[in-house]
This record gives sequence, structure tokens and C-alpha cells, in this order.
Amino acid sequence: MTGTLYGLGVGPGDPELMTVKAVRLLRAASVVAYPAPESGSSFARSIAAPYLGNGIVEIPIRIPITGGGDPDEAVYDRAATMLGGHLDAGRDVAVLCEGDPFFYGSFMYLFGRLADRYPVEVVPGVSSLMACAAALGAPLSARNDTLIVVPAPLPAGILRVRLAEAEAAAIIKIGRHFEKVRGVLTDLGLVDRARYIERATLDNQRVIPIEDVDPAEVPYFSLILVHRRGAAWRP
Amino acid sequence: MTGTLYGLGVGPGDPELMTVKAVRLLRAASVVAYPAPESGSSFARSIAAPYLGNGIVEIPIRIPITGGGDPDEAVYDRAATMLGGHLDAGRDVAVLCEGDPFFYGSFMYLFGRLADRYPVEVVPGVSSLMACAAALGAPLSARNDTLIVVPAPLPAGILRVRLAEAEAAAIIKIGRHFEKVRGVLTDLGLVDRARYIERATLDNQRVIPIEDVDPAEVPYFSLILVHRRGAAWRP
Repeated sequence: MTGTLYGLGVGPGDPELMTVKAVRLLRAASVVAYPAPESGSSFARSIAAPYLGNGIVEIPIRIPITGGGDPDEAVYDRAATMLGGHLDAGRDVAVLCEGDPFFYGSFMYLFGRLADRYPVEVVPGVSSLMACAAALGAPLSARNDTLIVVPAPLPAGILRVRLAEAEAAAIIKIGRHFEKVRGVLTDLGLVDRARYIERATLDNQRVIPIEDVDPAEVPYFSLILVHRRGAAWRP
Repeated sequence: MTGTLYGLGVGPGDPELMTVKAVRLLRAASVVAYPAPESGSSFARSIAAPYLGNGIVEIPIRIPITGGGDPDEAVYDRAATMLGGHLDAGRDVAVLCEGDPFFYGSFMYLFGRLADRYPVEVVPGVSSLMACAAALGAPLSARNDTLIVVPAPLPAGILRVRLAEAEAAAIIKIGRHFEKVRGVLTDLGLVDRARYIERATLDNQRVIPIEDVDPAEVPYFSLILVHRRGAAWRP
């Protein structure tokens, strides 16, 4: 009997926003893996820390920071081999995924390598989209709104076309693309109807008008929400 | 001291997909309100049932089924008045919201009426979008995909334009609009790259190719996921 690979969504940051199911499966797992920077601590692990047992084997998957958007295939090859060894030995492996595993998550690189050979269960998690709307205090989307989710690394021309159409938008993966995004929002007359949210649900959460954001200090875990009815519209 | 209004996302259906925070706040609340049909039981209540204490006051908000998309304002006026009475008396009120409170949810109609007068906290929940991707076993969106969420009640012409662009799409609120949506997907050559998912995370969950769906039997809690890389693509 091989073990089961669990992709556990751990939510946006507050450990209490993990689901009852993710907590139960994590407590029962023999092995836990999570993305981590080359040096330093893992955000996903910090979310799940209150639920980690003493005896669990921990496998940080250290991912080099690259300029481009392509994954480091060798890193995921090695991680898949290591997790496969535990699964072959009959041990259940929980992979911690910030937010939701299948929403722009790096879990897919392990899933792609292991799902044909082992039983896999994906446990959906609370996404930063919904956490940011709660932080902002306004509906993300309502009634017959079209909602669009666009990654900020896309070229300005594509961002402009896509943001021009939808009633509601979330711009993700902002980081060093902030100034480009601000330019697109300015061109479209949407700056006043947008808000920047960083580290939603954490103690240092911030909700800031676009003009007040320092582009040099935009963390990876930030996004911009836009709504045609206004930044903090009321139904 | 007035009470606090909590909008609790209860997730897509499996009670274990409620968050630790929503469970804690629900157990501490004096009053719980939830949407319900004119007769019969409430889906939101069924999700939260394992966590409801014996002493809690229950307020079903019975919402008439209407053909159009506009809310019955009188129903929400009356509900807001009733909840306001409890809040004025210092009692915390938890409102159960299927999925996430601010993602196409009816909670916004209570929020709009009460948020200026009482402290409100919105607790984000697992959305059916992410639950359906987990049920399908394929990422909802990845890398620099644009993801679009479109409500099926929109006219076919608008659906066609919006679905033609994004790499990934979720079509929500399908119900009696199934045949129109199937026609649009056929026109765009996307039928093979789409899957219909109903009652995700419940025991009677189903994932079905578009051609095999009986349009007469499409429940409210269903959606269609589309991905350019294929219905159940692997990274």
C-alpha cells in the first residue's frame, strides 16, 4: 500500500483560516512538505505551524527566486523523487499550499509529477481573493458581474484590454510590476476604483489607495482589487 | 454595547471545509441566520449543522424564488430589522453564507443594510470555484493565465466575447441557462475543454462531460470549468 499525497490549501495567512479538514489531515500525516525560499522560513509552514505535530518529518522545498515565470524543473524533480520515496513506503504526505492548491499554486508542479502514480487528494483552501475582499470590506463580485483575475506580469497592452471589460477585477502577482499596473489603471480611469491590499488576514495587513503605495515595497503577497461601482462599494 | 455581525463563509458543502475561525465564531454566537427557500431546509444550515449549539437562536431568511436576478428587497429589509434587534440587544449574530460571503453571495444585501450601524466582520470561506477544481482534479488557473468568472444569466453574445479570451473560465449560476451556455461553448470549440461539476465536495458530487448533462436536471449549485489546455489538463 502506497501513501496518499494531500495538497492542503492553508489559506491566506491567518492559521484560523485553515479548514477543519486540512487541520485533521495535517495532524494525521507522517510527512509534511512546503515551499520555502532558498534561505529563511516558509510562509506556508508559518500558517500551519500551530497544527504541526512533534514527530512529523518536514521537507522544505527550497525554490530559487528567478526573474522569469518558469518553474525550476530540477527543484520539483528532486522534490517529487523525495516525496515519492515516502509514498512508496506507505507514508501519507501533506503538501502545504498557500491559499488554494489549484489557484496559481506551485503545488501543480508536484501534482503533475506524482498524480499518475499515487492517490492524490486536493483539499481546497480559502483564497487570497476572498480574503482581500473581506479585508477591504466590499464584495468581490455580485449579481451578474464578470470577474477577471489577471497576473500582473502580463504585458501592459493585454492588461489594458482585459481590465477594460470586467465589472470586477483582481490583479495578482504584483511585486515589481506595480508601476506598470498603476499606469494601466490610470489610463483606464480606474485608480479611484481600485485598492491595494497586502498580507490580508495577518497582523500587518494593509489596505491602501493606489497613489499611496510605495512601488519599492510591494511584497509578493499583495493584490489589487478593482470594482466599477467603486473601491469600497456598498450593495 | 451592540453585538457584532459576522458573515461566515461556510464553504462549498462539506462541513469539514468550514474554517477553524468560522466554527469558533459560530459556536460563540447567540444568534444564527441563514438563507433558506420558502419551504424546506437551508443548504447553508446543513453545512454548519455539526457546529450549531443547542441554545442558539435560529433565524431562517426565507427567500422567494424569482425568475429575475434582482433580490426581494422587502425580505432583506425585514431580515435586517430582525438582526438589528438582536445586535442592539448586544447579541452577536452569525450569518451563514454558502461558499464565501463576498463572492456573489446574498450576504451583501444584509451587509449593505447593517454595516454602517454595527461592527461587521467578514470571515472568508472556501469558494466553489476552488472546490470544483479539486473535484475535477486539474488546476483552475496557473502561471500567467487569465481567469474569468462569468454568470450564465448574461446574454449569449456577451458570454461568447468573454469566454473567447481567457485561458481559464468558470461559468456560474447555470441552472436553467445550461442550453445557452452549451451553445456558446460549441460555437467557440470549447466543449471538449470544459467540464460540468455539481454539488462539489458533497457525497453526490458529479463531474460530467458537457454533452452528457441533462439540461432539465441542472441544480443551482453547479458550474462549468473551462481550460484552454484541456478539461483535465496536467501541468
